Amino acid sequence: MPHETSGQVEGLRYDSACARPGGRTARTGKAVMDATIAELSEVGYAALRIESVAERAGVNKTTIYRRWGSKAGLVAAAFIERQGEVSPPVDTGDLRTDLLSFLREVRRAFESPWIAALIRETGPRSVRNDEIHEVLDQIWPARFALSRAIFTRAVERGDLPRSADPDFLVEAAAGPLYFRWLFFGRELTDDFLECTTELVLQGASRPRSSGAAHADGP
Amino acid sequence: MPHETSGQVEGLRYDSACARPGGRTARTGKAVMDATIAELSEVGYAALRIESVAERAGVNKTTIYRRWGSKAGLVAAAFIERQGEVSPPVDTGDLRTDLLSFLREVRRAFESPWIAALIRETGPRSVRNDEIHEVLDQIWPARFALSRAIFTRAVERGDLPRSADPDFLVEAAAGPLYFRWLFFGRELTDDFLECTTELVLQGASRPRSSGAAHADGP
Repeated sequence: MPHETSGQVEGLRYDSACARPGGRTARTGKAVMDATIAELSEVGYAALRIESVAERAGVNKTTIYRRWGSKAGLVAAAFIERQGEVSPPVDTGDLRTDLLSFLREVRRAFESPWIAALIRETGPRSVRNDEIHEVLDQIWPARFALSRAIFTRAVERGDLPRSADPDFLVEAAAGPLYFRWLFFGRELTDDFLECTTELVLQGASRPRSSGAAHADGP
Repeated sequence: MPHETSGQVEGLRYDSACARPGGRTARTGKAVMDATIAELSEVGYAALRIESVAERAGVNKTTIYRRWGSKAGLVAAAFIERQGEVSPPVDTGDLRTDLLSFLREVRRAFESPWIAALIRETGPRSVRNDEIHEVLDQIWPARFALSRAIFTRAVERGDLPRSADPDFLVEAAAGPLYFRWLFFGRELTDDFLECTTELVLQGASRPRSSGAAHADGP
């Protein structure tokens, strides 16, 4: 099925649906993405079988292999299409509000069964998940950059010292949530998110390489 | 070749070793623990086979099942016996030194292939690793308590406010290391460990629920 973007092909429109959003290809795509997310939610990544996705979506598995190449390709496509379920960090102009909102979004992502399964099974790098990592490594940097922007904006506003390292601060802010939830299965309470926010704000407000006890300005 | 340290047992020496530390049972135990650590280092937890451990240790696999019960039991036993490879946090009387030393030990643990394999594969909780988690959950609290003591001692010395939450501070300090190493495969540089230490110290020195910008004392 050729990907048509205009209506008419040699006087025929018989398969114009194929080309439009909402057309057959799009419908197949949506069905397969839905099925992938559903399977991920139910059985996780390691146990996910393309055959099961195909069956659930009502398509032939060769259709999936042709369009998405492999399990890793399929899951990555689903991840890209549905990553909007985790909102990008907001820009309210206030560092504390932005940071707390970011941590709430991280928590919300953990509450999504398919995202939780992906993080649990493919988050930690190992040789066994090289393939999915190759794909996810194309996606993470963009999302990481969105989170980093919380801190770069604060530096630009003068709310954080110039020496603040946005990359480090993303790791310092999100790390405790991953650790607590993933390793200890402990609840990410509002109190925990607020404490983490305060700790990072307080730590970030101190210029690096300074021995002074109190220093908030750049 | 029995390791004999005492001389005579009922006039015979052939198997006196069996009953003592350093005897046959102990040697078998050591061989199996060594083999378990070696297999974990090479293939990880999911792919570890008791047959391979038995072969490497030169024992029958029924010996392993009889003594350790299951793969989870075997690996937990190896973990308990070898966890000394990660030193408990030191008590120097100085919070910054203790905390940095703790984070360096976390990094050193990641550098150990078998510990890295265990963390990668069984750290994140999932139904597929319930059994090993049941065992590890008996072990973690004790180690976590050792790390928490860094902060409880600091509170007792008056170096941190009474409102400081040692449990939270362990998560805030170790979390970024797990996140950076496990999810991004990024190096845990000295600089990163020092920044994390400073951030946690700075954040912890502020009493909770205080709106004041500067407050270090309890």
